[in-house]
Amino acid sequence: MLDLKNRLQRITHLNQAAAVLEWDQETHMPEGAEESRARQVGTLRSLAHEMLTAEETVSLLEKASPESDIDSDLVRVVRRDIDKATRVPSSLIAEMAEASGRSKSAWMKARGTNDFSLFAPHLEHILELAVKHAEALGYDESPYDALLDQYEEGMTTRQVNEVFESVKKDLIPIVKQIADAPQISDAPAHGDFPVDRQWDFGLRVAQELGYDLNCGRQDVSAHPFSTTFSITDVRITTRSDERFFNPAFFGTLHEAGHAMYEQGIDLALEGLPLADGTSLGMHESQSRLWENLVGRSADFWKHYYPQAQQLFPEALSGVSGDAFYKAINSVSASPVRVEADEVTYNLHIMLRFELEQEMIAGRISVADLPAAWNDRMESWLGIRPENDTDGVLQDIHWSLGAIGYFPTYALGNLMSVQLFNAAERDIPALNEQIATGQFAPLLGWLRSNVHQYGRRRSANELLEKATGSTLNAAPWLDYIRQKFGALYGF
Amino acid sequence: MLDLKNRLQRITHLNQAAAVLEWDQETHMPEGAEESRARQVGTLRSLAHEMLTAEETVSLLEKASPESDIDSDLVRVVRRDIDKATRVPSSLIAEMAEASGRSKSAWMKARGTNDFSLFAPHLEHILELAVKHAEALGYDESPYDALLDQYEEGMTTRQVNEVFESVKKDLIPIVKQIADAPQISDAPAHGDFPVDRQWDFGLRVAQELGYDLNCGRQDVSAHPFSTTFSITDVRITTRSDERFFNPAFFGTLHEAGHAMYEQGIDLALEGLPLADGTSLGMHESQSRLWENLVGRSADFWKHYYPQAQQLFPEALSGVSGDAFYKAINSVSASPVRVEADEVTYNLHIMLRFELEQEMIAGRISVADLPAAWNDRMESWLGIRPENDTDGVLQDIHWSLGAIGYFPTYALGNLMSVQLFNAAERDIPALNEQIATGQFAPLLGWLRSNVHQYGRRRSANELLEKATGSTLNAAPWLDYIRQKFGALYGF
Repeated sequence: MLDLKNRLQRITHLNQAAAVLEWDQETHMPEGAEESRARQVGTLRSLAHEMLTAEETVSLLEKASPESDIDSDLVRVVRRDIDKATRVPSSLIAEMAEASGRSKSAWMKARGTNDFSLFAPHLEHILELAVKHAEALGYDESPYDALLDQYEEGMTTRQVNEVFESVKKDLIPIVKQIADAPQISDAPAHGDFPVDRQWDFGLRVAQELGYDLNCGRQDVSAHPFSTTFSITDVRITTRSDERFFNPAFFGTLHEAGHAMYEQGIDLALEGLPLADGTSLGMHESQSRLWENLVGRSADFWKHYYPQAQQLFPEALSGVSGDAFYKAINSVSASPVRVEADEVTYNLHIMLRFELEQEMIAGRISVADLPAAWNDRMESWLGIRPENDTDGVLQDIHWSLGAIGYFPTYALGNLMSVQLFNAAERDIPALNEQIATGQFAPLLGWLRSNVHQYGRRRSANELLEKATGSTLNAAPWLDYIRQKFGALYGF
Repeated sequence: MLDLKNRLQRITHLNQAAAVLEWDQETHMPEGAEESRARQVGTLRSLAHEMLTAEETVSLLEKASPESDIDSDLVRVVRRDIDKATRVPSSLIAEMAEASGRSKSAWMKARGTNDFSLFAPHLEHILELAVKHAEALGYDESPYDALLDQYEEGMTTRQVNEVFESVKKDLIPIVKQIADAPQISDAPAHGDFPVDRQWDFGLRVAQELGYDLNCGRQDVSAHPFSTTFSITDVRITTRSDERFFNPAFFGTLHEAGHAMYEQGIDLALEGLPLADGTSLGMHESQSRLWENLVGRSADFWKHYYPQAQQLFPEALSGVSGDAFYKAINSVSASPVRVEADEVTYNLHIMLRFELEQEMIAGRISVADLPAAWNDRMESWLGIRPENDTDGVLQDIHWSLGAIGYFPTYALGNLMSVQLFNAAERDIPALNEQIATGQFAPLLGWLRSNVHQYGRRRSANELLEKATGSTLNAAPWLDYIRQKFGALYGF
């Protein structure tokens, strides 16, 4: 067991080092280093892959005799990792890497010039490779299962489809009701918000939620992200708009939510492949819980609005707490996913999820994609993108070959409410605590029900144990109905 | 040849990644990450070592048929690297790593409490291991040869001793003459120098010298250093004293000098073990050349003093260019090496060099070290450290097991003048160019005579080809006599 663990730790160190290099690339690296950095990361990642799938690891795994529950979980998870890693021929991995490199450049060009035809042949190639990838990985029902399983282990396309269908059925009418109701102005969130004060406020609140800067830090990057170098080094990034409060503040809460998940993993798992979020959906549930369920709640702003008002008098001195709360929760259908509010966001995801399945199954061609995108957008959200840059070309994911990734965003939203409801059940004073700036009980609940386990339990297992139910859309729909019904009077 | 190069590149990538992690550790890393970071770096460094000394590398090396001069140099240098790396048993490497970890902590404690006895037993152990290390590495004349060769390949203890003796003989009387002459005040370099303006000024000047920020950047760290992640990513760090101009400005020039060496290496060597400075002495010659021969020259300040005066009116508005030039070149014996001026610095080094040899040869015991240190200090520099913290305990090097490292500092000083004189010979307008802020010709000369070669030529080879002579103390002594004779009137 010890030899196996030592070897797995070395493999983990290679991946952690790669993460440091990627973080540096997005935050500090000089431009001229792009090519050499790509080669360095490539070497670290492929060495980690080679060491994981090597004869020696397999034989250590066979000889391993677990001495604890952690050991047993480790053997099981690593067996599965190796099984997956060895199913895909390295020629296909290389082909996918090359295709995504070229495809990303084409996508950037296509997006910049609003010309889908530049990206179309690359997307076709990406889809062909995704099908090959799925065949190599293997699946029970549909190739999409294999793709989804890369990001959301244990969830099936069927399960996700069922849950998403029930969301869609109820959500589209809610969006219509809101569109027909008197609109709420988000003007109070716009104004003069000096960037340095935004930085200080966001980071201080993140710390008060429980993000530990002794084992983390915040930097600036073009696209905010969180990244993990070890349980004791989990970093976030942010960007600010000096005229708009929301992006930096809720972005920081979002990334801090991801980071607190990783900081909360049992230290006994440090350096092992178990020390990671169990799935992207579960990860997103943690970011969304802190960003939305906590950070966009009326209780939260009971505590923080006086501070915000004092910090940003230029923008907020004449704004009531109620007007501010409404502004940061205003709903307005936008063609762009990353600008979407809590209500419409999931529809953006479901659109992509449906189109991905149809493309993989060959039921829709790449040539027909922009029209299908726009039609569904119009029918679900009542808006039609003015161009493909704000439509089918808006996301980078497909260009990178990440098919099966999008649904995890919506899964995270659904799980976040399931978990928050369970926390409310277990902590009767939870809302009062939030209204007085006490977040330790909630974080403690998440640590003991989710964080500590790392990859030792699947998302469904964690959900079932903590909430009494596996993935379930009803709590999220109830939450949306209640919160936005009150705001929009339905 | 291609397989060999690919393998060597992967090894280089591991070492480059380790350098990124070490840089992050000194500049940005949160405190809580110390332990995990040490493990990550340990894995990267030991994987690189294992891959270098593996059967496979040796057999690729045997089969390699060089197709170019670079290939031939590569094979030669890597053979030597592997030979050295395999001579030392890994048990000894592990023992040294462990000893230096414990010894460093003991040194920090000893230094903090001014109690040499806390460090003494550790230093004894370090010295025992250094002798074992030297025996394992092998040598012609003395064990110290083997230790020196780690840092200054190709130089022998005999050669260095001869050169240092000739320096010492002339330098000690010069120091006495200066001490007896009317003293120069360094007061003009002290005053109100706002840190952000120091940062901007130092970094701008570094760029004007030729440090390329498209392939580099500057951060803050407790101890300034330069580090290389690739030829296209060479970074420096600095620290500032808001009341003293010298540390940040000359520190930046010093580190930029190191960095320009690495940025100037032939891009054809990228990713290969040849892409590195050829020796620590040659590396130091580059930092010292820019810091002292250029940056502390009267010509340099003809160009930059008006700018400095404009930038720092609080401190410099009433200070003449001549007074400023004198202030940054004032000589004053200090017990502390890192505060030493151009004249006395080499004596600090020679003191350590002699004591190292005597300790390795068993001619002086650790118990007698503090007294020997203080006595020689008094006889050479005319000052006696008030305590061991400012005496024998001041440097971290011995605690880390770095015996044989110190002489490279003085070698760098000597080489810097040899090279600068040759550049003056080849570029007749050099001093005029410096006085008008044109540094490209000098940098170009260094690139074509030193930088481009990386490790393809030894320091002595480079010196001989560029200057007509191998290591030689006379030019440095002449330079010191001329510059400081003018300043102190002898």
